[in-house]
Amino acid sequence: MQNISSVMPSKSISLEEFRALTRRLSNWGKWGKEDQLGTLNYITPESVRAAAKEVKDGKVFSLAIPLDAKGPQRGVAGRFNPMLLMTRDGGDAITGAYQKDWLGGAEKETRSTDEVIIMPTQGGTHWDSLAHIIHRDVMYNGRSASEVSSTGAKKNGILASREKSVGRGVLLDIPRLRNKGWLSPGEGITSGWLEEATEKQAVKIRQGDIVLVRTGHLAAVQKRGEWADYAGGDQPGLSIDALDWIAKNKVAAVGTDTWGLEVQPFEVKEIHIPFHVLAIVYMGLTLGEMFDLEALARDCAADARYSFFLAAQPLPFTKGVASPINPIAIK
Amino acid sequence: MQNISSVMPSKSISLEEFRALTRRLSNWGKWGKEDQLGTLNYITPESVRAAAKEVKDGKVFSLAIPLDAKGPQRGVAGRFNPMLLMTRDGGDAITGAYQKDWLGGAEKETRSTDEVIIMPTQGGTHWDSLAHIIHRDVMYNGRSASEVSSTGAKKNGILASREKSVGRGVLLDIPRLRNKGWLSPGEGITSGWLEEATEKQAVKIRQGDIVLVRTGHLAAVQKRGEWADYAGGDQPGLSIDALDWIAKNKVAAVGTDTWGLEVQPFEVKEIHIPFHVLAIVYMGLTLGEMFDLEALARDCAADARYSFFLAAQPLPFTKGVASPINPIAIK
Amino acid sequence: MQNISSVMPSKSISLEEFRALTRRLSNWGKWGKEDQLGTLNYITPESVRAAAKEVKDGKVFSLAIPLDAKGPQRGVAGRFNPMLLMTRDGGDAITGAYQKDWLGGAEKETRSTDEVIIMPTQGGTHWDSLAHIIHRDVMYNGRSASEVSSTGAKKNGILASREKSVGRGVLLDIPRLRNKGWLSPGEGITSGWLEEATEKQAVKIRQGDIVLVRTGHLAAVQKRGEWADYAGGDQPGLSIDALDWIAKNKVAAVGTDTWGLEVQPFEVKEIHIPFHVLAIVYMGLTLGEMFDLEALARDCAADARYSFFLAAQPLPFTKGVASPINPIAIK
Amino acid sequence: MQNISSVMPSKSISLEEFRALTRRLSNWGKWGKEDQLGTLNYITPESVRAAAKEVKDGKVFSLAIPLDAKGPQRGVAGRFNPMLLMTRDGGDAITGAYQKDWLGGAEKETRSTDEVIIMPTQGGTHWDSLAHIIHRDVMYNGRSASEVSSTGAKKNGILASREKSVGRGVLLDIPRLRNKGWLSPGEGITSGWLEEATEKQAVKIRQGDIVLVRTGHLAAVQKRGEWADYAGGDQPGLSIDALDWIAKNKVAAVGTDTWGLEVQPFEVKEIHIPFHVLAIVYMGLTLGEMFDLEALARDCAADARYSFFLAAQPLPFTKGVASPINPIAIK
Repeated sequence: MQNISSVMPSKSISLEEFRALTRRLSNWGKWGKEDQLGTLNYITPESVRAAAKEVKDGKVFSLAIPLDAKGPQRGVAGRFNPMLLMTRDGGDAITGAYQKDWLGGAEKETRSTDEVIIMPTQGGTHWDSLAHIIHRDVMYNGRSASEVSSTGAKKNGILASREKSVGRGVLLDIPRLRNKGWLSPGEGITSGWLEEATEKQAVKIRQGDIVLVRTGHLAAVQKRGEWADYAGGDQPGLSIDALDWIAKNKVAAVGTDTWGLEVQPFEVKEIHIPFHVLAIVYMGLTLGEMFDLEALARDCAADARYSFFLAAQPLPFTKGVASPINPIAIK
Repeated sequence: MQNISSVMPSKSISLEEFRALTRRLSNWGKWGKEDQLGTLNYITPESVRAAAKEVKDGKVFSLAIPLDAKGPQRGVAGRFNPMLLMTRDGGDAITGAYQKDWLGGAEKETRSTDEVIIMPTQGGTHWDSLAHIIHRDVMYNGRSASEVSSTGAKKNGILASREKSVGRGVLLDIPRLRNKGWLSPGEGITSGWLEEATEKQAVKIRQGDIVLVRTGHLAAVQKRGEWADYAGGDQPGLSIDALDWIAKNKVAAVGTDTWGLEVQPFEVKEIHIPFHVLAIVYMGLTLGEMFDLEALARDCAADARYSFFLAAQPLPFTKGVASPINPIAIK
Repeated sequence: MQNISSVMPSKSISLEEFRALTRRLSNWGKWGKEDQLGTLNYITPESVRAAAKEVKDGKVFSLAIPLDAKGPQRGVAGRFNPMLLMTRDGGDAITGAYQKDWLGGAEKETRSTDEVIIMPTQGGTHWDSLAHIIHRDVMYNGRSASEVSSTGAKKNGILASREKSVGRGVLLDIPRLRNKGWLSPGEGITSGWLEEATEKQAVKIRQGDIVLVRTGHLAAVQKRGEWADYAGGDQPGLSIDALDWIAKNKVAAVGTDTWGLEVQPFEVKEIHIPFHVLAIVYMGLTLGEMFDLEALARDCAADARYSFFLAAQPLPFTKGVASPINPIAIK
Repeated sequence: MQNISSVMPSKSISLEEFRALTRRLSNWGKWGKEDQLGTLNYITPESVRAAAKEVKDGKVFSLAIPLDAKGPQRGVAGRFNPMLLMTRDGGDAITGAYQKDWLGGAEKETRSTDEVIIMPTQGGTHWDSLAHIIHRDVMYNGRSASEVSSTGAKKNGILASREKSVGRGVLLDIPRLRNKGWLSPGEGITSGWLEEATEKQAVKIRQGDIVLVRTGHLAAVQKRGEWADYAGGDQPGLSIDALDWIAKNKVAAVGTDTWGLEVQPFEVKEIHIPFHVLAIVYMGLTLGEMFDLEALARDCAADARYSFFLAAQPLPFTKGVASPINPIAIK
């Protein structure tokens, strides 16, 4: 393949080309009319078994950013940071209120703490389910948008993937490939870049892999010490061009370290989040956002091993369209 | 060891014995004054590496009950079932409201769905952190209850264990040992029963194992088709007696298929949830509740293999005292 | 008029009659195409000025049931009881956590308490706005249901009535008329009953009055000491027949002491909540539910004065379809 | 009295003076040991009856800012803007999802909309109850802070005042007195200013009045078109000096058009929100914040009548420490 020696601007794709891609990339019907998993079908008992062999040192990396009241959300798309509200706490224990409120005044020594969480399921590190994106009233596998009502998603929801988000993970560290700390907003990662990364990193992609693409966008946040416009705003990310590589390699799911995964400004002038539409609606590709790949990337750079076992199972929300996750990479 | 051939009632333990146990079982200081992990410290890179070898078939089992508006909570301890509230849905897409509400009326084809979740972190399958239980104003490792205020747990919280709840899992199927579908409320599982189960199941416990104890209480729910008093009420569960076995075997964490893990009615007349106090406050033992062990138990019975790789990582709530989880067992 | 000397069963109305009523009762266009207030337009500065003259003793009655975690909701229609979650409390003050969490550790003497409320706006005493009911895709004044999206009601919402729910109130105490404690589920209150009540109570209805109809259903709850099926289930209430009387008298709004206002079982076999449809969608009549009329009714019986000043203003939720209220009657 | 011809800086009060004021202003015990109402006791049937006579034109003014997702909160003190989440909407009606989700697929024509609200009770226009402020572990009437636990306020809460926040209202328009649009942050309103305002406005204060003090701070927001630092930040407001005037006049409650009511920077260096402490904890004075006084002030200026009937009843939250309100002024 041809090396790309300089940073390319994200490509501009015409509406006509976009329409052609909806047909060329479509996986509708590939796994049957009833399928709700899309490319997660590439994960099989065989691929999981093989993935376990990636565990060599027993090192564990959590790839989630903390679910924290202070960030990263700032209201874009109606998202907010998790609210943790205590229903029983240590103050109740010390003042004796616990005893009155919960034990009917009986003299007991035990107190427990408890809490309620309020959060958007896409507020932190998460998977989008295949019910997250709708294109002209239709979802993945040709289902009507009416399947997602005020009570949630009857089809294509996150529950379907409860046993399907584990397997072999591969990190592709794009800024490292370019010898820089991070990509800039607007830089789109193409099929060529991804292929180049596998070559430089000496890692082969296998069917069913979950590919984590590092843009360094989160590293920039950590460096500057504030979230600022991380959650919504122009960002580096996957180019529509990358979908060919993803499809050809039978990748099961893709995650990045940005808020929105795809390069922004968007590549199709007329279409909002066009990569999401092609990936989720037409390919049935599960997308992950806001993965913290920093510690893992340092470790991979240190031992030159970019594959690992990945457990990134969602919470099984009935009818949910997404789930917060704590993806665990084990090397 | 001596086999126990009939079901024993849960033992009654005096307050004096209980006080002695708080001293005998205590792990305070064992891993240093700053420790917030307790027995999860038994999980090491070596134990994780060894755990991965349990993956032989690549079969994946989700051990979580669905996070569902219909159950299992019924208000006990202020718990309620998860509320999933859509902030963008398919109806908005079809009526054109999405376009007006979110895209400023611009003519676009893309629509996305989104949602907010409200739930108690202990409402479904979950881990209790070491900040969940307070005994006479003190938490694990001698910390003051004042560390858990209305803003959450400054110490001993769930965030500490974000990379520590993965390793080798072992299922001990107690009703199967007794040739019945499930234990009855009030039946307490002792050290003897646990040891007997390992012998019958031909599985050896290793340091750092996460032990999942099946009581069949959830099987009874599934059989009768309604949650009824599953969430709060008398239940079978671990006896305080079992803590010796757990301590001796250096178990990292314990989970069961009941709402409250320990046998109820409680075994110490004067103390509410006495097993929780001894386990969490004094041993620093992480406890898991409402694991769905049914499919896993059937598979283990079928191939007579009761150990597996377990990924049961919590969501990384800053200051959280618990976390919903989707534990994944892989055989 | 003709007195009705015995309890009548609620009437059965054919679908054809129902369709005729949608035309006969319709107020669409009466106050202009842009109107969002419906019969609340009957409230005018003149009627408010006159209403103030009802204040003779200065006695104040709150007509709201407490917003309480214990009732009355039990899950019907997805309703739940209010959750009050403290974000700062007295325990934080006493333990010193407040100082650390909110004042950066500075030595201060002041502490404040704060809380978050989560509730359905129709969970307790409330007004339905004209955006609450949709009939065959249309709302009051012919507006499309698409005006009520996941972000709320763009038209016909509760905000419109923020200055319009005050005026003269009249209590019509139907069980008193019948010399009993309360009506039974299924008993429908007709135009004849309402007229009879005004005569027995010697009160004249004026244009713009807010009429509160007591069924005694809440008295039965108070007597038996539990909410039971108060919130959803068969109930006494207004009969469709009553709409003629309401229309003729130019009543501004109607409230009752039941969960659902209209008699249940419903009077039109094919139509769910048919009174709501006719009243809200076609007449533009604001409906109030779960008013506690007990203390007020006792006082009115004592002094034989059934009219009063009523301040029942909603909270001004932008785009809300209902609002909890604390209606204040002043005699 | 002496006119104040120029703007005075807010006074600096020593800790010693502050301590003396806690004694001098204290109303503890004045209305009995069990009292939870404080100065709201000044409102009596007689004062309410007299207040009704203020209604002369029948003009109604809502004094609440809308409960809106867009403002005014910006995170200070953990406050956020109301979240209105639809549980049933017009999209469900149009797509037919409503029928499936709520009516079991039965063919019906009726659809209803419903919603859940999540909000801090002090996020918009609201009353603080006497449980809102704690000084050195003690609340109004000498009650322990332990009465406000994670389940809410057992004493001094908002429920107590459900029938007590109606009566005669008086607007004192301070910037008008000074011939300017609004006061500046840091400008403190003294007893002298309040007295001067009553003279200029030709209004006499009576026992039991609810006094609304306009600073113009909200007018400045409306002029500039953005909330900016309205919710938290330096502000004009009542000076501690004003408490003498308030006490002498037996005012029942005080509200202003600012986020925090009292002048900021605070007047006692060592004490956070010192006016709140003196007013709420020691006087038992109910305070109201974020009242929109603009339209009312214009009307009062036009007809030179600054008194009116005021219905500002709270929602009856069991154990609540505050309540959102929609105060209605009627002239």
